[in-house]
Amino acid sequence: MRIDIISVLPELMESPFRTSILKRAMDKGLAEVHFHNLRDFGLGKHRQVDDELYGGGAGMVMMIEPLDLCISELKSQRNYDEVIYLTPDGETLNQKIANSLSIQKNLIFLCGHYKGIDQRVRELHITKEISIGDYVLTGGELAACVLADSVIRLLPGVLNDEQSALTDSFQDNLLSPPIYTRPSEYKGLKVPEVLLSGNSKKIEEWLHDEAVKITQEKRPGLLD
Amino acid sequence: MRIDIISVLPELMESPFRTSILKRAMDKGLAEVHFHNLRDFGLGKHRQVDDELYGGGAGMVMMIEPLDLCISELKSQRNYDEVIYLTPDGETLNQKIANSLSIQKNLIFLCGHYKGIDQRVRELHITKEISIGDYVLTGGELAACVLADSVIRLLPGVLNDEQSALTDSFQDNLLSPPIYTRPSEYKGLKVPEVLLSGNSKKIEEWLHDEAVKITQEKRPGLLD
Repeated sequence: MRIDIISVLPELMESPFRTSILKRAMDKGLAEVHFHNLRDFGLGKHRQVDDELYGGGAGMVMMIEPLDLCISELKSQRNYDEVIYLTPDGETLNQKIANSLSIQKNLIFLCGHYKGIDQRVRELHITKEISIGDYVLTGGELAACVLADSVIRLLPGVLNDEQSALTDSFQDNLLSPPIYTRPSEYKGLKVPEVLLSGNSKKIEEWLHDEAVKITQEKRPGLLD
Repeated sequence: MRIDIISVLPELMESPFRTSILKRAMDKGLAEVHFHNLRDFGLGKHRQVDDELYGGGAGMVMMIEPLDLCISELKSQRNYDEVIYLTPDGETLNQKIANSLSIQKNLIFLCGHYKGIDQRVRELHITKEISIGDYVLTGGELAACVLADSVIRLLPGVLNDEQSALTDSFQDNLLSPPIYTRPSEYKGLKVPEVLLSGNSKKIEEWLHDEAVKITQEKRPGLLD
């Protein structure tokens, strides 16, 4: 999988991509991530990428021309399955969307910044708009990191068995059951007896029952 | 505001906190963020912080003792308004939660990693559990960055007028209307006439109508 990330602040995304699972995926050649600084496509000697809102109001808008130049250049080099704009008014990311993106080959992530992008860029190039949740962030850069992490960790060979994604929350529409490790008692707090019983059938039943109970309690909507 | 972030991978969070709005908030003394490497509280000469699941199964669990030592030490130094565990089965973050956290003084963010933390840590110390969305991430580190960004940008003095948060999506339960900047025509794509009219009353009405229309189309639930 190849992901091209377009941003006015690529330096914000440095550390997440050089750490942990994302780094390993890239080191293994399972994912390639390329950052594009929009300012390299900026206009004039000041490399302008944003301008004032038509109609007035606070905030700046990312201009159409630098974005069109950048995206068009990428598109001339290869075919992209999706050109994704990270924006608070996009479709809300969930595990199903992450799963479906994980089987794609080439993706562009465009990080919104300031007040967002000129609407005409959406009409011209964007094939999918994704929000990571109902809250406002300074820019789309953290959203791009989150989306990349949720997708890249699903690529075959990225996680080892120890980190198996199959029993994670959401993959089976259930939240995870409570988990415990040693010691079996700490400051009077004990691990549930059944987990120490060695009876794997009972343990499995208990874990499933707890997962269903917790999901019903906290997020009944997931069971629909 | 002071935020203490506990993690096994603090280096993952370096670049988001030294860039853009988060950096400015810290440079101005409006927010203080302290990272705590859980391994500093690890057990034995290998600084162990995780161990196998009781009851069996893939994945490792963050042990209770290092977490208890770390959180207890912080709590002995000051009062915390909330000890927040970032976990996929927490309450889903939204703008209302971000707003309410932005008026707190001292917060602890605990980043889950591996399969998560020993359940007894939740009983002992955690006062709030937050998820940034219904998808699985490698760890809580990106979630902590997202939560910190959503909260810190709301602190008075962090944003300048140009970045005013008041007209952002979600603050008024409406998505943003489409935005445009120069040029008024690009490759045949035109800016809506009304925005060029200079009639501020008409413009305001149009922007409001568009925001309502887009919200009804994309996220009718926000209007309830």
